[in-house]
Amino acid sequence: MGFLVKLGILVLVVAVCQAYQDIWDYDGHKLKDTDYLSLWPMPQKVQTSVTAFKLSSSNFQIVHAKQSSAGPGCSLLQTAFRRYFDYIFGYMKKQGFSKEPKKTVGEEVLELQVLITSSDSECDGYPGLKSDESYLLSVDQPSAVLQAPTVWGALRGLETFSQLVYEDAYGSRNINKTAISDFPRFAHRGVLLDTSRHYLPLKVILANLEAMAMNKFNVFHWHIVDDPSFPYVSRTFPDLSQKGAYHPYTHVYTPSDVKMVIEFARMRGIRVIPEFDTPGHTQSWGKSQKDLLTPCYSGATPSGSYGPVNPMLNSTYDFMASFFKEISSVFPDAYVHLGGDEVDFSCWKSNPDITKFMAEQGFGKDYSKLESYYIQRLLDIVSTTNKGYMIWQEVFDNGVKLNMDTLIHVWKGSQVQYQAELARVTAAGFATLLSTPWYLNRISYGQDWVNIYKADPCNFTGTDEQKKLVIGGEACLWGEYVDATNITPRLWPRASAVSERLWSDASVKDVNKAYVRLVQHRCRMVERGIAAEPLFVGYCPHEYKGNL
Amino acid sequence: MGFLVKLGILVLVVAVCQAYQDIWDYDGHKLKDTDYLSLWPMPQKVQTSVTAFKLSSSNFQIVHAKQSSAGPGCSLLQTAFRRYFDYIFGYMKKQGFSKEPKKTVGEEVLELQVLITSSDSECDGYPGLKSDESYLLSVDQPSAVLQAPTVWGALRGLETFSQLVYEDAYGSRNINKTAISDFPRFAHRGVLLDTSRHYLPLKVILANLEAMAMNKFNVFHWHIVDDPSFPYVSRTFPDLSQKGAYHPYTHVYTPSDVKMVIEFARMRGIRVIPEFDTPGHTQSWGKSQKDLLTPCYSGATPSGSYGPVNPMLNSTYDFMASFFKEISSVFPDAYVHLGGDEVDFSCWKSNPDITKFMAEQGFGKDYSKLESYYIQRLLDIVSTTNKGYMIWQEVFDNGVKLNMDTLIHVWKGSQVQYQAELARVTAAGFATLLSTPWYLNRISYGQDWVNIYKADPCNFTGTDEQKKLVIGGEACLWGEYVDATNITPRLWPRASAVSERLWSDASVKDVNKAYVRLVQHRCRMVERGIAAEPLFVGYCPHEYKGNL
Repeated sequence: MGFLVKLGILVLVVAVCQAYQDIWDYDGHKLKDTDYLSLWPMPQKVQTSVTAFKLSSSNFQIVHAKQSSAGPGCSLLQTAFRRYFDYIFGYMKKQGFSKEPKKTVGEEVLELQVLITSSDSECDGYPGLKSDESYLLSVDQPSAVLQAPTVWGALRGLETFSQLVYEDAYGSRNINKTAISDFPRFAHRGVLLDTSRHYLPLKVILANLEAMAMNKFNVFHWHIVDDPSFPYVSRTFPDLSQKGAYHPYTHVYTPSDVKMVIEFARMRGIRVIPEFDTPGHTQSWGKSQKDLLTPCYSGATPSGSYGPVNPMLNSTYDFMASFFKEISSVFPDAYVHLGGDEVDFSCWKSNPDITKFMAEQGFGKDYSKLESYYIQRLLDIVSTTNKGYMIWQEVFDNGVKLNMDTLIHVWKGSQVQYQAELARVTAAGFATLLSTPWYLNRISYGQDWVNIYKADPCNFTGTDEQKKLVIGGEACLWGEYVDATNITPRLWPRASAVSERLWSDASVKDVNKAYVRLVQHRCRMVERGIAAEPLFVGYCPHEYKGNL
Repeated sequence: MGFLVKLGILVLVVAVCQAYQDIWDYDGHKLKDTDYLSLWPMPQKVQTSVTAFKLSSSNFQIVHAKQSSAGPGCSLLQTAFRRYFDYIFGYMKKQGFSKEPKKTVGEEVLELQVLITSSDSECDGYPGLKSDESYLLSVDQPSAVLQAPTVWGALRGLETFSQLVYEDAYGSRNINKTAISDFPRFAHRGVLLDTSRHYLPLKVILANLEAMAMNKFNVFHWHIVDDPSFPYVSRTFPDLSQKGAYHPYTHVYTPSDVKMVIEFARMRGIRVIPEFDTPGHTQSWGKSQKDLLTPCYSGATPSGSYGPVNPMLNSTYDFMASFFKEISSVFPDAYVHLGGDEVDFSCWKSNPDITKFMAEQGFGKDYSKLESYYIQRLLDIVSTTNKGYMIWQEVFDNGVKLNMDTLIHVWKGSQVQYQAELARVTAAGFATLLSTPWYLNRISYGQDWVNIYKADPCNFTGTDEQKKLVIGGEACLWGEYVDATNITPRLWPRASAVSERLWSDASVKDVNKAYVRLVQHRCRMVERGIAAEPLFVGYCPHEYKGNL
């Protein structure tokens, strides 16, 4: 029998008591939502109309504007032009529930001119925390114009342009007269994937980078190694993966794989921030690195098992210095994530050498001081590589001395607790980003995207100065229960709820209106080959046909 | 940071306080679990040894035994031989965690002889509730023998044989000397898929029938239509899908599609039982069938919306007679599922004609009497088509007079409630099957297969005679939140937990031991192209490469 069909519908009836960002046409008329079904995330400012223009695959071109600082030599843009041309014309695309817009016969958009206005287009650079992703988009006939300071904004604008195109009942592509001014609310909008608990084949990572670009995410937080396996192939310490991966050839990321991920991400305006989490979560490191982990004791003798990184040996720091020197050159981003979470003290407590070291250092029985001692030395090492670092909140909570440009990653506790943590972190002057409400590995029955969508990283008690220190957040998909078989539908469109929260204006929070757009956006992802799961009962004009 | 890795492990430590079905070698030695990692569901009786034989793709054949009542003219078996030969040799297969078994050099299994012992092999028939699925399997050199009364048992034995084959470190296929005597504990072992709330493309249905065969399921309960859409193309009433499907061409099952599903299932020993649920869950029927549904009233005037099937019109019963006449000829199985669940009385209550009819019939204010009136007449109609019927438990609960061969499908309530229902139904002398604990659309974080696995349909207070009336159960995957993008990993391997409960002996219930085998079984499904999701942290020797 049918099971509580109404459950999901009821959820949607719970309207959020907030004004929605209304959309107006050129004559000052408020437009109906159905005219804007499919924009996701919602741009900051949209002005549009019912005037529709045609787009023909034989006539339409995406071109560099004459005054643009980027030209055909900019392969990032050239590749993006091709990608978005394919999205627009490469499959059938239809606004399923939209009424037929009024059309002015014969009017056609013949080109989209892309104009990069800064003298440095940043075409050959990497995106960063301070990249300008803003853009202006004007759709008119015969030319639409996309204007952006750099290629990063142009990428976002191309996605928006492609989302404006729809198909009428006769199969014609149409786009309405529109003006959009857009920029992200937060600079750091990330997705964490965990390739240690389960290995993810390269093509799965790339497919999810594609989906991230469709949602204007700009950070791939690559939780690349952890206790269960070490798939990262280190040139300096090849034994780390040789002995620590699930399999030394089939379950690893070679230097060439890593380069490909970074370049594929760069082409979509996505930063790659690797996480090498220590001193806990390092069992797989110990498979090859003698003495790196602390030997645990059972009474007076070693038990044969190992705990966190051994913080008392100089060899530990020599190793970390070499290792992070490599990491700093392999990953171009200005930040590396150093973890620092969930350190279990029981092994340290069992080890008599550690006990002696604790006494020598005057740490008493406070093992968090030992943890801080390790982290402090590690941070000093990483600082010498000229990288900034991100760390999980425990490092801040334990009072480790941190560079003021450190990013504190909040992941723990209830809503009340994480809001208090955001207040403490920002009161101390640190920039922060939020993940607690966005642990997408946690699942429950029904439309859980609603609570994901409602969470706001600025919703805590603090001054305007404090709020400015919130640089964004990340959707985290930990790998205990996901691998290539289920990762894509588990992540999408649930992560899309995070993407709108982090990109759009804070006032965009009407769940019912979001539902209508998100259904369309999800079908668009499906049409583009992403196995995004359904939100609720219904159908897409073009259902999922196969993977990747 | 890593999230409660230990959670899943803790679950596994909760051992069930029951003896496990031990496995013995030919010399009476108890064997280690690691020698039998991958059998799923566990056969009734397994006798095996560490003596390993080779299998070579160039030497090995699956052949009809000389005395068999089936020969090369039996395309069901011929196709199965090819399928299992492909499974055995078509991809790399490895018992990842097994120690190398002792091998007797040069000994090889050259053939698997398949011997059908009944004079009627049933090769060209359809499986049914009373089909004999038992088989005997003897693996020795140079010949292995699979003996079964009918092709249905042979199919189950071929699956078991393929599960015994493993690959050693050198890539050789091996199989250990083994004798298995096997039969199902329950006759009805089903999976329900819902193609109304979301349409499922044909290839998705076929892929899941493949996976069902790998798990020895034998019933595909096709919940083919419901409120949201009517994808079944009726030859008698083509407007039902023309107007009631999500799309009249792209989101329907044509007569040829339905035939293909039935034949594909038959080839795997799987019955197809369609469900046409009435009088509720019929909104999509009303799109084309004028007067079929009850007009709801708002005060004294029709509101424009419609409720359940209109039980007071003769035209309703004329329609049902024609419709089910077609259904009885399209679907060869002896049973059809007639639904009868979740009838909402509010529309009936609003309608003045219904009120009048209730008074005439002397039903008072008891609308369940009206429901029973409808169901009674429907059952009489369906009885004339010589079909048996399955119905959801409400029909029994409401006291409708039922043929004694009616199957009562229990789906409601808590554990206490469904156990009481099983007791009531069987005390009344009806055969029953259980689904309540196996609503696989309901999801939660972590290893929820454990509770699915622990549920037992005979675990209620009743006599032995009552217990015998329990014919099995079904894993139900309702379609609110699943479509082609996520259905396969949502269903597998969670449904596998149901398959072992329904096939294996009741004593097979050690969760820890099941975990070890299920991990292997899940990897085997992945190797065979089924996107079965992981149970927990780890890897398969050969990860998922693509869909279907």
